[in-house]
Amino acid sequence: MSDPDDRPTQVGSDAGDGDRPPTAFVPAHVTGFFTAEPANDPTKAGSTGAGLALSDGVTVRVEPATPGTYEVLLDREPMDIEAPKRVLQALRVDGARVYARSEVPLASGFGVSGALALGTALCANAVFDGELSENELVTVAHGAEVQAGTGLGDVVAQARGGVPVRLEPGAPAEGVMDGIPARSRVEYVTLGELSTAEVLSGDTEELTHAGERALSALVQEPTLPRFVRASRRFAREAGLLTDRVRDVVLDVSEADGSGAMAMLGETVFALGTGLSDAGHDPSVCRVHPTGAHLTLDGW
Amino acid sequence: MSDPDDRPTQVGSDAGDGDRPPTAFVPAHVTGFFTAEPANDPTKAGSTGAGLALSDGVTVRVEPATPGTYEVLLDREPMDIEAPKRVLQALRVDGARVYARSEVPLASGFGVSGALALGTALCANAVFDGELSENELVTVAHGAEVQAGTGLGDVVAQARGGVPVRLEPGAPAEGVMDGIPARSRVEYVTLGELSTAEVLSGDTEELTHAGERALSALVQEPTLPRFVRASRRFAREAGLLTDRVRDVVLDVSEADGSGAMAMLGETVFALGTGLSDAGHDPSVCRVHPTGAHLTLDGW
Repeated sequence: MSDPDDRPTQVGSDAGDGDRPPTAFVPAHVTGFFTAEPANDPTKAGSTGAGLALSDGVTVRVEPATPGTYEVLLDREPMDIEAPKRVLQALRVDGARVYARSEVPLASGFGVSGALALGTALCANAVFDGELSENELVTVAHGAEVQAGTGLGDVVAQARGGVPVRLEPGAPAEGVMDGIPARSRVEYVTLGELSTAEVLSGDTEELTHAGERALSALVQEPTLPRFVRASRRFAREAGLLTDRVRDVVLDVSEADGSGAMAMLGETVFALGTGLSDAGHDPSVCRVHPTGAHLTLDGW
Repeated sequence: MSDPDDRPTQVGSDAGDGDRPPTAFVPAHVTGFFTAEPANDPTKAGSTGAGLALSDGVTVRVEPATPGTYEVLLDREPMDIEAPKRVLQALRVDGARVYARSEVPLASGFGVSGALALGTALCANAVFDGELSENELVTVAHGAEVQAGTGLGDVVAQARGGVPVRLEPGAPAEGVMDGIPARSRVEYVTLGELSTAEVLSGDTEELTHAGERALSALVQEPTLPRFVRASRRFAREAGLLTDRVRDVVLDVSEADGSGAMAMLGETVFALGTGLSDAGHDPSVCRVHPTGAHLTLDGW
């Protein structure tokens, strides 16, 4: 009998799953507060801050396509989005189509572009027999998102899940993360869109000072109520609060709830039943304990 | 109207969950190969290696008890186990009872003692209004497990979920982790018990050399088949393979499956349907993408 250690195995990385294509689920991520930390090296660039990974998120599937072509379909609509295409090129995939379904709106502070980048990295590695580790795939997606200018910290937060706290900016080899050990029902309403790229390309000094104060307050007491309070103060100090968002946040506070603005979107999120209690008609989900991951249908 | 940023909030860390006590779920962790890396500082001590976090695991609940008393009940039976008691003392909890249910057997290579330590840390922090972060709680549980001598790397792996690869030993501030981006059905059979404490207190030099070779092979190609192959070779080279385990691993290989020994227990795990195909009657679960986390019943 041959040595079993040296025999090739029939079991692929999707063992037990037959021929179904792998899909990835990436939780949405609402940032409560953040700093902008630019750097020439995209693995060092990023942000500190904190947010919530949500059970609502983005599901991604990647299929081979005509060499040289890169297409991204979000909810069946072709979209011109840079980050996932950069991921495919970084992984040396020559031609692919990315199919994505999103439970949350674009450009509203849920990290959809980061989710597309990270989901594409996980699926493309599985489909095209890549041999990168999780840290390497997160690094590729983080770099693509930073270079596209569409986000600074969503990818590493979405890779972690839970209530991610970004203590030092950057991809896994550079960044330092922690988390708040708590779970909650989360409600949200979206009032309109904001462009992350526009805010990030402007003067971010004020914003970063406010973000540093918020992080310092949260580290002293890493709890959900403190997170939402620090986020509320950050939105005001950073000058990012729109009139419509402020009104809804005040509604929630008057109903004894705890809500804040999602960075960067005209979105208000609240813990528990904060928005319902205030008479709004929110979407309802929860903090998602799981980071981005491949899923095996049926498993 | 008062400033909403300064008003106390009614929302606790279990927002939306009413008065139900928080419980924690900690995935079981089968180590495929490892090194022993002792150090005087328990946050620096630990191991490198790799394993699988499983959807079968341990559920923990903590309740206040008579001051000065510490009791652990596993599946309703009182048990004398050091790590969770050390966690309660480190968190300055004066009297507590830990209720745990386990889907996997003790002393068989599933990291049950690590799961009890980590689950106790998460629940005690929530129940007794502690204000530690996730990294701090993982550090407390890792240190308790190392000092109890019952494990070196399960706690940090169980905190991460998925297919954790421990590149550098120690608690979060010291250790370095990565993961294999793959999921799979997992089967296992347990043939008997082994004492982790006995192996770890003996000469671990040979074992550590074998573990270093296995890690180096896995880092070159971070895939599940490579992980199982490296684990199989490790068990033999480290001299830990028992006759009964070897026979079952060979059965799996002869049926074209991929299985190895769980460290440290008389347990064989296999990807996909490896054990069923070989005519065994295994327990069936899957790689669990989620690390240890608080759960809110009903959510």
